[in-house]
Amino acid sequence: MSQQSGYGDDEYSEDARRAIRSLVGNNEASIFFTAGGTGANLLSVASHLRPHEAVISAQLGHIVAHEAGSVEATGHKVLTAPGVHGKLTPEQIQSVVDRTNLFTFAEPKPKMVFISNPTEVGTVYTKSELAAVAAVCKKLGLLLLMDGARLGAALTCSKNDMTLKDIYDLTDIFWIGGTKNGALLGEAIVIKDPASAADFPYHMKQRGALLAKGRVLGIQFRTLLKDDLFFRLARHANSTAAELSSSLEKMGFEFWAETESNQVFPIFSPALVQELEKGFNFYVWEHLDDGALVVRLVTSWATEPAQVKKFCNAVEDWSKRSKVL
Amino acid sequence: MSQQSGYGDDEYSEDARRAIRSLVGNNEASIFFTAGGTGANLLSVASHLRPHEAVISAQLGHIVAHEAGSVEATGHKVLTAPGVHGKLTPEQIQSVVDRTNLFTFAEPKPKMVFISNPTEVGTVYTKSELAAVAAVCKKLGLLLLMDGARLGAALTCSKNDMTLKDIYDLTDIFWIGGTKNGALLGEAIVIKDPASAADFPYHMKQRGALLAKGRVLGIQFRTLLKDDLFFRLARHANSTAAELSSSLEKMGFEFWAETESNQVFPIFSPALVQELEKGFNFYVWEHLDDGALVVRLVTSWATEPAQVKKFCNAVEDWSKRSKVL
Amino acid sequence: MSQQSGYGDDEYSEDARRAIRSLVGNNEASIFFTAGGTGANLLSVASHLRPHEAVISAQLGHIVAHEAGSVEATGHKVLTAPGVHGKLTPEQIQSVVDRTNLFTFAEPKPKMVFISNPTEVGTVYTKSELAAVAAVCKKLGLLLLMDGARLGAALTCSKNDMTLKDIYDLTDIFWIGGTKNGALLGEAIVIKDPASAADFPYHMKQRGALLAKGRVLGIQFRTLLKDDLFFRLARHANSTAAELSSSLEKMGFEFWAETESNQVFPIFSPALVQELEKGFNFYVWEHLDDGALVVRLVTSWATEPAQVKKFCNAVEDWSKRSKVL
Amino acid sequence: MSQQSGYGDDEYSEDARRAIRSLVGNNEASIFFTAGGTGANLLSVASHLRPHEAVISAQLGHIVAHEAGSVEATGHKVLTAPGVHGKLTPEQIQSVVDRTNLFTFAEPKPKMVFISNPTEVGTVYTKSELAAVAAVCKKLGLLLLMDGARLGAALTCSKNDMTLKDIYDLTDIFWIGGTKNGALLGEAIVIKDPASAADFPYHMKQRGALLAKGRVLGIQFRTLLKDDLFFRLARHANSTAAELSSSLEKMGFEFWAETESNQVFPIFSPALVQELEKGFNFYVWEHLDDGALVVRLVTSWATEPAQVKKFCNAVEDWSKRSKVL
Repeated sequence: MSQQSGYGDDEYSEDARRAIRSLVGNNEASIFFTAGGTGANLLSVASHLRPHEAVISAQLGHIVAHEAGSVEATGHKVLTAPGVHGKLTPEQIQSVVDRTNLFTFAEPKPKMVFISNPTEVGTVYTKSELAAVAAVCKKLGLLLLMDGARLGAALTCSKNDMTLKDIYDLTDIFWIGGTKNGALLGEAIVIKDPASAADFPYHMKQRGALLAKGRVLGIQFRTLLKDDLFFRLARHANSTAAELSSSLEKMGFEFWAETESNQVFPIFSPALVQELEKGFNFYVWEHLDDGALVVRLVTSWATEPAQVKKFCNAVEDWSKRSKVL
Repeated sequence: MSQQSGYGDDEYSEDARRAIRSLVGNNEASIFFTAGGTGANLLSVASHLRPHEAVISAQLGHIVAHEAGSVEATGHKVLTAPGVHGKLTPEQIQSVVDRTNLFTFAEPKPKMVFISNPTEVGTVYTKSELAAVAAVCKKLGLLLLMDGARLGAALTCSKNDMTLKDIYDLTDIFWIGGTKNGALLGEAIVIKDPASAADFPYHMKQRGALLAKGRVLGIQFRTLLKDDLFFRLARHANSTAAELSSSLEKMGFEFWAETESNQVFPIFSPALVQELEKGFNFYVWEHLDDGALVVRLVTSWATEPAQVKKFCNAVEDWSKRSKVL
Repeated sequence: MSQQSGYGDDEYSEDARRAIRSLVGNNEASIFFTAGGTGANLLSVASHLRPHEAVISAQLGHIVAHEAGSVEATGHKVLTAPGVHGKLTPEQIQSVVDRTNLFTFAEPKPKMVFISNPTEVGTVYTKSELAAVAAVCKKLGLLLLMDGARLGAALTCSKNDMTLKDIYDLTDIFWIGGTKNGALLGEAIVIKDPASAADFPYHMKQRGALLAKGRVLGIQFRTLLKDDLFFRLARHANSTAAELSSSLEKMGFEFWAETESNQVFPIFSPALVQELEKGFNFYVWEHLDDGALVVRLVTSWATEPAQVKKFCNAVEDWSKRSKVL
Repeated sequence: MSQQSGYGDDEYSEDARRAIRSLVGNNEASIFFTAGGTGANLLSVASHLRPHEAVISAQLGHIVAHEAGSVEATGHKVLTAPGVHGKLTPEQIQSVVDRTNLFTFAEPKPKMVFISNPTEVGTVYTKSELAAVAAVCKKLGLLLLMDGARLGAALTCSKNDMTLKDIYDLTDIFWIGGTKNGALLGEAIVIKDPASAADFPYHMKQRGALLAKGRVLGIQFRTLLKDDLFFRLARHANSTAAELSSSLEKMGFEFWAETESNQVFPIFSPALVQELEKGFNFYVWEHLDDGALVVRLVTSWATEPAQVKKFCNAVEDWSKRSKVL
């Protein structure tokens, strides 16, 4: 029955689940596969919040300005805090809650905290940072959701001191990104509370996230989780980023954020950016007051050393030429 | 502070609450005042349901086809059952739930049952009927909401064997209609679960239902609940309807529904309806197969015996004239 | 940039679009790919309707009771008509509109008509039937959306007298089902109005329907639309169903609906159903008053003649045995 | 028919409309009455925006943090700009639009600009400021909505150089606040586009904003608009605020915002605030870096000179005492 395979009870999805359950240390863990990250986020939020409840996020959080108002479209407000290097702190979470309590019923009631690991600027939470966030959430009665679009990169970078089990233990919902780590599509949502998990397929169906042939997603994760492939691919992305970052640093460039995982944020002049745009794809992340530009470079499992070299050479060539001029 | 008076903690609203608490037999009962019935219903539904949950109603239920899709606009589906004389039965409720379980996750999950007392066709629940509905709701884990737009009429009609306390005990949420029983505006929503009640002002604020000057509504109910006024007004509406119904019955007319409270549904010929429309306001409720029309006559606290007489005379005159023709 | 491939401007998606544009006879036709049918429907509805607007469907329409309230979750009511053999007729559409106009503002305003071709019971629209529906939609100012989950089957069955171009010309939005016709996933939504089409990516992003790697969907359709594969697969499903239907008919069985495409609805006794459930997957579609059961058998591109034979043999064996008993 | 009076076609509402139409200079102007401001705002937004569209507001805009997420609950995001003294400028509006265009489809599409006059901090738009905002809205294809909760105060303050007609001409939707200017309840929404206006009752009904007895609201406005009462009450609030502001200024206090209408924002020490809280109701608006507090004092049509005097005396007494200490 096609309906059944939609719930991913095909053998591939079950294999993938077994692998994830082993990693999180719970044989009963509830795991659901969706096609993409925006869907994973809006589903996680909407399935856990009631209409008068809102979700807290750092300003850079993906749900704030990169998902076309997907959370608002489910009826919920996103309450933002500035974030520190893209990460939410217990103080900032408390601050948002205090702010909503200033005038009675003026703001919707915070009920969930949204964090990404790594953050949207590639910084990662340490175990104690995550534990501190989890603790304030518990104290304030807030659910904790972790967007793991690049979770592989977070877990394999040098700064990391956490396992998937730590993340499972410290969060209420988190998802493991497949799409950004080698999969054609697919994210695996892990929901800790059995009652929430029991009703989750309703939400998936209702929001159009349930695939008739769930094995399409199951296969992705089964493959990724075999032979450490998921982590190897992420490790490659990280090390490639580290090389790139290191090369640029040697050339004397400064960075807008430290390179902790697979995102590099060098500060370039507009002229250099203009030159590089001829041959490379990247975002101009920010315009600094002095006219300089922060550029965002993302490496992936597929980034070849030759590409990094080519990029760095282009930067170096331009630097030489402009020094001459 | 105007915000406070919005929550109806002014003295008028508090007086009104005291009166209602006394009637329902609970000094702690949570009571909220809204301006109108559509708002009372959409608030009651949306504040208690999560996105994947739906509300069950009889086909004639006001939320089904008379509130411009207000429930759907909050994201919820209304699952309908035929109803029996406008009333939901335990069997029909069970039937809807069974229907939604036929195909896994195909329908949203029923979570609330909506009934009106009196129903939209003026029929009323007996205590044992309501208790049976409440019992099946309990068994199926469904909340029970009662729309009491004309609750005064239900409680004062001859068929009634319930008190407000019975209704409070048997439902999870119910509201007492002021607008249709003498008030300029106002409905009093009574919410039994303290946790739901604690968050209810968020929903009221969010849906634009919180008035800055809540005493406007408090005054209405304080006045109505003094000196039995609420019940006297309703009793008048009922007895006026009984007279009207009785007179028409004596003239030989048949009825589409029994006159149990303040609505009368005589069956008239199109020619008679055409004649009556010249001088009176009423709805053509239904077109019968044989071409006859069911007309809906509603009396109120303000209906004068003279009006009833005038109407009956007009009917009688026409009847005589058409017999002559 | 991964964002771009989400909009399906990769070469695979562009190839697929070219093929579809050729079939619909418009080189500028706007085409979007989503992963599944529930998503295609809720997106098509929500992107074209304003909050006070509703969609009309036959009672059997997939959005009515098979998508977990997905349309209601976007805030819209589904107004149903009985349907005739699962199809909407101009009279029934007019009837729903008249019904909503009975009491001013009592119902949301119909703005779209939803039909499926084939219907959920396998029946197909003829060109003149579709043209009649399109005409009444035009007259009443309603948009016409066609769910084409099994459109391949509709277009290749013997009764069909339409082309994809006819469908494009007669509807405002329609989608071509890939998932149910050989694809791993994927539906192609065709939107005629350029203004609606221009904004459609916002809706896709907002509802979590935009895939980062759109080529995943593009490849499916490019492959299906090459060498007539899409139509060959559908033709196979239809002819297989025709054989199955014919065999059962020869055995003396009656049908609940005529077999027009790839769905067969024989009427079986409960005992036969019980026997068949041991070896085959199918739905019991309906319980008839006399105790008989309507069973729904669906063939696909993958159904082998041997499976049909096996099923028919099982039926025949049981029939023989029970005649003996 | 009670339904009709809900649409405010009773004589009181019609009288009120005539008065407003005369003031805005258009005999056909569409005017709707709602009970409160949050409802007026959420209705104005939701009735004009499609799901993928968002509304722009200054950070201090009432819909941002004072309406319990009412706009988000209708599915829309509020995109904020810092504001200048609480007012939106053309540059800031352009800036928000540019921001949303940075990454394709990352943010919902701005479609409406929300301003309040006076702003939430009592500052008012001059005619040329409003015209400049209107011009950039026109250029960018944005609707302009004005929250007129205290519009009376804006129109009668000394800085004002606009008429209601100017506001009607320069906006797409605006509402005149009754509740904050003498009415028990009631706001009058004026909608310029006839097509939007034609469908507005659907939205009012759907959101529970349609009162059965619309004359309740009509009477408020009819009374207010007779004999210049509306403007006299507002003028009184303004002059009372001017006196209060002037007295405090003479005592040497500084202000966080200039007193342009009926809100005064003096800067007090925490000790003074503590003293004043014993006898007066007001909000602490902000905590300044140096520990001082910004207090928000609002006068109304009902503020008596004696109250102002009492307040100023209390401030003066405390000032004297603390100088002594």
